[in-house]
Amino acid sequence: MTSPIDILTINTIRTLAADVVRKANSGHPGAPMGCAPMAHILFSRFITANPANPKWPNRDRFVLSNGHACALQYILLHILGYDLTMDDLIQFRQTDSRTPGHPESHITSGIEVSTGPLGQGFANAVGLAMAQVHCAATFNKPGYDLFTNHTYVICGDGCLQEGVSCEAASLAGHLKLGNLIVLYDDNYVTIDGHTNLSFTEDVLKRFEAYGWHTQYLADGDHDLAGIHEAIERAKKVTDKPSIIKIKTTIGVGSKNQGTEKVHGSPLQPDDIVAIKKLYGFDPEKFFHVPDEVYNYGKQFCEKGAKAEAEWNQLLEKYCSEYHDLGAEIKRRFSSKLPDNWENHLPRYNPSDSPVATRKLSENVLNKIADVLPELIGGSADLTGSNLTRWKTAEEFQADSSGLGTYSGRYVRYGVREHAMSAAMNGLASYGGIIPFGGTFLNFISYGLGAVRLSALSSFRVIYVMTHDSIGLGEDGPTHQPIETAASLRALPNLLFLRPADGNEVSGAYLTAIKNHERPSVIALSRQNVPHLEGSSVENTLRGGYILKDVDCAQIILTGTGTELSIAVDAAKLLENEGIKARIVSLPCFDLFDEQSLEYRLSVFPDGIPVLSIEALSTFGWSKYAHASLGMKSFGSSGPYKELYKKYGFTPENTADKAKQVIEFYKVHQVPSLVNRPFKQ
Amino acid sequence: MTSPIDILTINTIRTLAADVVRKANSGHPGAPMGCAPMAHILFSRFITANPANPKWPNRDRFVLSNGHACALQYILLHILGYDLTMDDLIQFRQTDSRTPGHPESHITSGIEVSTGPLGQGFANAVGLAMAQVHCAATFNKPGYDLFTNHTYVICGDGCLQEGVSCEAASLAGHLKLGNLIVLYDDNYVTIDGHTNLSFTEDVLKRFEAYGWHTQYLADGDHDLAGIHEAIERAKKVTDKPSIIKIKTTIGVGSKNQGTEKVHGSPLQPDDIVAIKKLYGFDPEKFFHVPDEVYNYGKQFCEKGAKAEAEWNQLLEKYCSEYHDLGAEIKRRFSSKLPDNWENHLPRYNPSDSPVATRKLSENVLNKIADVLPELIGGSADLTGSNLTRWKTAEEFQADSSGLGTYSGRYVRYGVREHAMSAAMNGLASYGGIIPFGGTFLNFISYGLGAVRLSALSSFRVIYVMTHDSIGLGEDGPTHQPIETAASLRALPNLLFLRPADGNEVSGAYLTAIKNHERPSVIALSRQNVPHLEGSSVENTLRGGYILKDVDCAQIILTGTGTELSIAVDAAKLLENEGIKARIVSLPCFDLFDEQSLEYRLSVFPDGIPVLSIEALSTFGWSKYAHASLGMKSFGSSGPYKELYKKYGFTPENTADKAKQVIEFYKVHQVPSLVNRPFKQ
Repeated sequence: MTSPIDILTINTIRTLAADVVRKANSGHPGAPMGCAPMAHILFSRFITANPANPKWPNRDRFVLSNGHACALQYILLHILGYDLTMDDLIQFRQTDSRTPGHPESHITSGIEVSTGPLGQGFANAVGLAMAQVHCAATFNKPGYDLFTNHTYVICGDGCLQEGVSCEAASLAGHLKLGNLIVLYDDNYVTIDGHTNLSFTEDVLKRFEAYGWHTQYLADGDHDLAGIHEAIERAKKVTDKPSIIKIKTTIGVGSKNQGTEKVHGSPLQPDDIVAIKKLYGFDPEKFFHVPDEVYNYGKQFCEKGAKAEAEWNQLLEKYCSEYHDLGAEIKRRFSSKLPDNWENHLPRYNPSDSPVATRKLSENVLNKIADVLPELIGGSADLTGSNLTRWKTAEEFQADSSGLGTYSGRYVRYGVREHAMSAAMNGLASYGGIIPFGGTFLNFISYGLGAVRLSALSSFRVIYVMTHDSIGLGEDGPTHQPIETAASLRALPNLLFLRPADGNEVSGAYLTAIKNHERPSVIALSRQNVPHLEGSSVENTLRGGYILKDVDCAQIILTGTGTELSIAVDAAKLLENEGIKARIVSLPCFDLFDEQSLEYRLSVFPDGIPVLSIEALSTFGWSKYAHASLGMKSFGSSGPYKELYKKYGFTPENTADKAKQVIEFYKVHQVPSLVNRPFKQ
Repeated sequence: MTSPIDILTINTIRTLAADVVRKANSGHPGAPMGCAPMAHILFSRFITANPANPKWPNRDRFVLSNGHACALQYILLHILGYDLTMDDLIQFRQTDSRTPGHPESHITSGIEVSTGPLGQGFANAVGLAMAQVHCAATFNKPGYDLFTNHTYVICGDGCLQEGVSCEAASLAGHLKLGNLIVLYDDNYVTIDGHTNLSFTEDVLKRFEAYGWHTQYLADGDHDLAGIHEAIERAKKVTDKPSIIKIKTTIGVGSKNQGTEKVHGSPLQPDDIVAIKKLYGFDPEKFFHVPDEVYNYGKQFCEKGAKAEAEWNQLLEKYCSEYHDLGAEIKRRFSSKLPDNWENHLPRYNPSDSPVATRKLSENVLNKIADVLPELIGGSADLTGSNLTRWKTAEEFQADSSGLGTYSGRYVRYGVREHAMSAAMNGLASYGGIIPFGGTFLNFISYGLGAVRLSALSSFRVIYVMTHDSIGLGEDGPTHQPIETAASLRALPNLLFLRPADGNEVSGAYLTAIKNHERPSVIALSRQNVPHLEGSSVENTLRGGYILKDVDCAQIILTGTGTELSIAVDAAKLLENEGIKARIVSLPCFDLFDEQSLEYRLSVFPDGIPVLSIEALSTFGWSKYAHASLGMKSFGSSGPYKELYKKYGFTPENTADKAKQVIEFYKVHQVPSLVNRPFKQ
């Protein structure tokens, strides 16, 4: 079952990992060495993929959840013929290299998801597995097993300690994801030392409790046949995800093997010499891959190319028999949107009844969900509050649950915000899917570790976040976001949208769906808002625009979401006093900042002071506003109208503040930036 | 074992809960009704506390982790004689009431921790239990069982789905916290519907895997004796935390009992009439508590007052026998710091060798840990990186682990950032303890749900966050914080400190420890920094100050942390060209904003443009700076010196940007806030 080439490949990975990390003078040699046997068996026996086309839809997915062990993954990609050269390996962890310190899916071909923050990869894999069963249930037909891939994960104990993986494991068990197979590298070592310092639970028993199939292998350093057989058995279990706990020795072969010393620092040169000798390698050779190993890599490529060619043939045949479905596969996996889908977005007039923006979001979903079958969404157990479930939605559930099928598109994530966010990254990574998920805006803080990876990885994930301010009311400050908008506005490559009314909600979805390479957070209200004169779907795409203009404005009132209509009402009060105010809507800072300076100056010209109003922290508004009306403390529990009064979010107070701003700037020509009309 | 008063009290809670939520027209009636039996048995048979002194150190702690059920807790506090009147109950969820929509420990007497965000209370309870065993091991002596309290939790399935509780449960099992008893209200209903939609794991088996003692009770609606006996059994298990899964009917007695309809909305008036009739109450009476129930409450008070009086006597006797320890208990539980502790803070001169601020933090801990025995800290498995372990530290572990004892003060939190943060809230809540915990600054995002509750609850928790920028280097953008400072600066009642050198690190700890009623995040570098001329421990307390001044400054360079020395070097380059620059250090925005306008204007006067430099998102700097040098994207993997060049954090680029700012403001007198010298 195993042969000399297996041993040779494994030892090549081990010695190369030692060289790669040593050359970088930074990194983690121990886990790549310890995981080499399981990784090799996985790739040589089980994984079908085509290095010449790393995006082939039906490839098996591999996730290295313990991303710090990425020397392993880079070495495998190199040996297996992916677009990663020996020079790239030599450039490990160097500036602008294709081999960064942790795997980044947008940087390195063949990497599915960005990992390293522990537990994320595991939870991404649950999303990847969900995507596969969904595509299979949606597209496979008798004789056409187009979507059959597995998702394989290697993870360490760190990943399994993290809450995000616990949530994801429970979800995967519930969903009976038989296509998910996790190899748990149990090396008993963490950064702090032996796992007995902090991690003494019975992991496999825990996974049994989640409804997983579990196996244990006592010698992951040498028992290649055992690894092979365990994965074989796991593949045969089709109604449960599988975890195989594999006992290994971290840094196996090093004089410090089995200790935390080999975890996060390069091995010493003399140690590397000894390791190479131990494994029958020439200690004078560095970055050495034997020809036999490269030959094995070529065979992997050939097998993968053949598999893809057969798959493409099958798809063509499928297209002739199932014309529409075949076209859908091609469209969705090339990230094309259906023609004219945006015509389905609802548009509103000021005479339409006031309505909560979360309800307007539901309206959008009701209009576009059938037009965009790649939209797959749900909520972290707040469906009735987030209003994320569209009328025709069907449940995404295992057939045997009796509650739905995998072809359903409404996901019950449970009370698991972090796993939802991370699983959405996996769903987006799979291809052909636009995932969205809902919770209260405040609880995006539970999933922020995953949200920032949506942004870093350029995944189009849509976060539908309702109850977006103190307007949430009675639930109180534990549930009222304050710092949240600042946090998301400061995050690169993510669009934080806070639409003010119906047209802007449609504009927010248009933005989120059109932006293929970045996630969006759409912040939505619990309370009703009127539809505003001058609001626009298209202008929302510019991030900011003049909602209402006047000649010779003395002040600009700007805001977002539920506070924009307060600004409009304040302008009316000011008008009664003969004071002229322009209104600027700013639904998305990032999109506005991307506009030309000329456009931005046309919105906020020299010489007119700006007052912002937003029922969230004022932090960050100084970018545009000379003075800001916002939250300087946590909110409180009470009916939202009372809270809006308590914290000054009324037309009257806004008008009053506007007059202060105008007065102030009559006498302050070049203000210090700390000297403001009022405390903010 | 049970008597008519038990039934009467339980039904009083149920009917009162219906009234309270109905009157508020908002809230959650179902869980209070379903949990009434277990809560009543807990308080009437097991909990010893003194409503007249809710802060008595040895009281049993009760945490309602499913905080949305807080009508239950408020009703109990009222009946049991805490400072909560019937008027307070009538004001449930109203603005400025003492009965907010979710429990807030700083608002309502008798509430230990702020709960509602699911899973937090559970994890707080682990911290409370850690605190008790620590105080017991530190202070108890033969014949003096001063610290003997238990921590009791009621939680729902939502809490147990959250990752934070999973992490905390694993930690509690590892630490063998026999003083922790959790009652799991298993009512099969979530907001979305039946738990079978998303939560089908075997919870008790999972807890067994964590090393917990588990029990199941089939009828939590009626089997009062069963509840009693199960808690008795749990108390007898002293080497494991306990969980008792209690099957209940949500909203029991309502026509919609057992469904999600009674979860989050008031019951209908006719339903409430029927419920009152069912439970033998007069349907015409609202907010009714029978005299017998108030009498039972009085007995609870008397029992608690007696217990505290006995405890106080015991403490006085202890003080005469163990004078120093007794004085320590009194000092620590009155939140007094030892005299002159701050004299131990290290101070530095510019001639001292450059060193990383994380190392300077270790220096502080080495100097103060023995002087401040209430400091109890650890790391989420990054001890060697965070440098959180002081020289004389002993391990906080169960005796039976062979690794330490509960009197140890160094906590191995494992790879569990969220549980660490939430447990620290529990440790702070217990009293007599100042908790600190370390991870990389980037991974505070994993624990943000708990961090914001440290702030809301006014808990002095110290977050020691290292590797605080792209200066982390090779680990790459998955580990490099960008948005993090903005997020924390926007969070009310939390001090985000980013010290620049040795004196400022000492100043940061001085700030964090002196601020009794707010948490601090101390951001620390991986890379070395020089000790700066003009830096000051005391000035750090002002949040911002002039580090180096010049006559007739043409520009102000301001920054924090590792970038401040770059500003200093840039000023030297500018000086060579005859350009005069003032340097302002801004280690803490919030503290600076609290200074007088006069002081702030003395630092940032009118007429001098300000350029900020910080290797984090520029978002928020517009508050002080006319232009900002910072991160506009994620970072990348590489040696930090190269990254600093790549992103422009060099004296040369800073000087160049400073000249652009000066030039720009020669011709722009009253700038629009969007028109800046360069893109930021």
